Amino acid sequence: MALIVQKFGGTSVGDVERIRNVARRVVATVDAGNEVAVVVSAMAGETNALVKLAREVAGGPPPPREYDVLVATGEQKTSALLSMAIQALGRRARSFSGAQIGMRTDASHTRARIESVDAAKIRSVLRDGVVAVIAGFQGIDEEGNITTLGRGASDTSAVAVAAALGADVCEINTDVEGVFTSDPNLVPAARKLDRIAYDEMLEMASLGAKVLQRRSVLFAKRFGIPIHVRSSFSEAEGTWVLAEENVMERLVVSGVTYDRNEAKVRVRGVKDQPGVAAAVFELLAQADIVVDMIVQNLGHDGTTDMTFTVPLGDYERALEITRGCISKIGAEAIDGDDTIAKVSIVGLGMKDHAGVAARMFRVLAQEGINIQMISTSEIKTSVVVDEKYTDLAVRALHAAFVESGASEPVPES
Amino acid sequence: MALIVQKFGGTSVGDVERIRNVARRVVATVDAGNEVAVVVSAMAGETNALVKLAREVAGGPPPPREYDVLVATGEQKTSALLSMAIQALGRRARSFSGAQIGMRTDASHTRARIESVDAAKIRSVLRDGVVAVIAGFQGIDEEGNITTLGRGASDTSAVAVAAALGADVCEINTDVEGVFTSDPNLVPAARKLDRIAYDEMLEMASLGAKVLQRRSVLFAKRFGIPIHVRSSFSEAEGTWVLAEENVMERLVVSGVTYDRNEAKVRVRGVKDQPGVAAAVFELLAQADIVVDMIVQNLGHDGTTDMTFTVPLGDYERALEITRGCISKIGAEAIDGDDTIAKVSIVGLGMKDHAGVAARMFRVLAQEGINIQMISTSEIKTSVVVDEKYTDLAVRALHAAFVESGASEPVPES
Repeated sequence: MALIVQKFGGTSVGDVERIRNVARRVVATVDAGNEVAVVVSAMAGETNALVKLAREVAGGPPPPREYDVLVATGEQKTSALLSMAIQALGRRARSFSGAQIGMRTDASHTRARIESVDAAKIRSVLRDGVVAVIAGFQGIDEEGNITTLGRGASDTSAVAVAAALGADVCEINTDVEGVFTSDPNLVPAARKLDRIAYDEMLEMASLGAKVLQRRSVLFAKRFGIPIHVRSSFSEAEGTWVLAEENVMERLVVSGVTYDRNEAKVRVRGVKDQPGVAAAVFELLAQADIVVDMIVQNLGHDGTTDMTFTVPLGDYERALEITRGCISKIGAEAIDGDDTIAKVSIVGLGMKDHAGVAARMFRVLAQEGINIQMISTSEIKTSVVVDEKYTDLAVRALHAAFVESGASEPVPES
Repeated sequence: MALIVQKFGGTSVGDVERIRNVARRVVATVDAGNEVAVVVSAMAGETNALVKLAREVAGGPPPPREYDVLVATGEQKTSALLSMAIQALGRRARSFSGAQIGMRTDASHTRARIESVDAAKIRSVLRDGVVAVIAGFQGIDEEGNITTLGRGASDTSAVAVAAALGADVCEINTDVEGVFTSDPNLVPAARKLDRIAYDEMLEMASLGAKVLQRRSVLFAKRFGIPIHVRSSFSEAEGTWVLAEENVMERLVVSGVTYDRNEAKVRVRGVKDQPGVAAAVFELLAQADIVVDMIVQNLGHDGTTDMTFTVPLGDYERALEITRGCISKIGAEAIDGDDTIAKVSIVGLGMKDHAGVAARMFRVLAQEGINIQMISTSEIKTSVVVDEKYTDLAVRALHAAFVESGASEPVPES
């Protein structure tokens, strides 16, 4: 007998038939002798509809406190419906709102951070043989105001509940079969991973893989909760996200990811002196623009070129802000490019194998793809290329690193 | 400066434009120098949609605890949206769920009774110049479970909040202009009443008038809260529901109402001995059938006929149950009629004027309408007639009692 937290996303509970399907899966887990707490998202489309309504009524961005009160109804609705569906199958179930399980957060409306969960309340229900069906995405602050954790944060709710309960596993049931070595729509040879380490998953989430919310992986890593990502619509095993020591097969490259949602800004001919970078990035931070990669090259004449990437949606604003300080930082010119893509390889094995980055560059060069920027961490290497090469780059890297033999050391260049 | 509780029903908040309209009305009340707490229903159609969804998921009547969790989202949604709309007009507002204002009820899911309201919480918000926007219809029980008060019970929430706050008035803003002397669809000469006593309103609500929920009037009477029923869509004064001593013009007949939703069952040739009536009505009560009028006539041969009315929807079951005890009570025959209507006159003035009932019967006789049953109380007289005479009876009584001169004593017969 295990204690299992099962999370079901919006697509999995998108209509009456799907809610019934989820109920059958929960009941099967209970009948296998487990204690089960379920965390649910709002039905697919519900949150978007509520947000649209809010913007119409408010005539602009809605006030955050009331936005949270409004959108939190979506998950409350699903929790009641799933609880009904489980009861219709003859099992006991009970819904809980964030407030009712003491999901305490800070007071940052629309992006609150979880502080604690009242595990005792859930445990006493589970001990009575009742399935706890918990509304994800929501909590309450110290004063009892309803808060929400940010879009897609029901994963984080589920891991927080699992951590509070000391659950054996947090199952993330979703509309894909697990974590893949690359986007199967782009790379037909992409395969499902059986296991992946928290850190690899974190890099992949940061790099645009949409399977798991980054914050939920951080939580799981901190509390050592195994995550099992699997499909709501199949019985097959999915991908386990685990501590590094439990991922037996240390792949040099576990995944090849890409992100077309960035643009780059280049500041040319900056005098190579302290404070120039700070001046630009402070202004961007004040404008709430998140800078991702930053590269600086020393030029031949004592000046440098500095290039950085920002989210595509912030590109025009970022250009404008940077141009605004052109004289202050003594730059020659500012230009940019919004037709770029970031392509990355991620893998624990990189720690042990030198030359992985170099081999990556060689693979891209062989395809005639020019690298515009490079950024590395212990277990990932990212490059920025012209957007039109995205598919080619991803397929070539997947073929070279993933299809060519999983955990073999890569020959050094 | 007054403390005003304003309640807006589902039609009044039925879409974005209407929510904005309500916000303008609330702001106008605030700008006139008042403290305002608002109680809202779910947007028109929302509760029905949720109930339908629940029945589909549950495959039958949904479990009451989860039904309450589900349908309570409707009012929570409106409370957030109206709060946003008020803020969009530059005023401060804050939504509250039933739980957040400590609307404590008993644990009878789907028809809970209010036990107390935490007035201190609302008062402190109002004192800060913030409009409190409260989700009607919902509360929490002792253990923190969400409860609901029954369909249409947001009126009751509003009066309970007004009572807890000691408000100067509870405004019920709805889709009609006030309480009318009769159904304007049936009686073109029906006119809006300026004032009506709690007891008259109670009788009219019991008799099928849909303007105010009966329970809300009982609450208002008990705590002496004046109710002002008015239209959400006009600035005109509506109808004040007040203590008897504040209704200056004591009308002999304030209203002529009708109810086509009853059927009658007749038990013929019962031996006139104790316990016969009890045997039948105990069985009906066990089947949750509410009996309205009961009439018993002593026959010429030591037996009696007993006739009673039940809700139309329970007619077949009531007939069956009564037939089941035909031998036990020694009756000759059971028959019934589901094409009847109850027509009633209501008025405080009846207390002081003898002969009102007799005049009612004469008016009906003049129109050739046969009276099948009669039931009276201190301030109302009801008769059962063939359903086809409903319109004729209502119009004739309205002409005779209301149009003929409001508060004049009626000549005795």
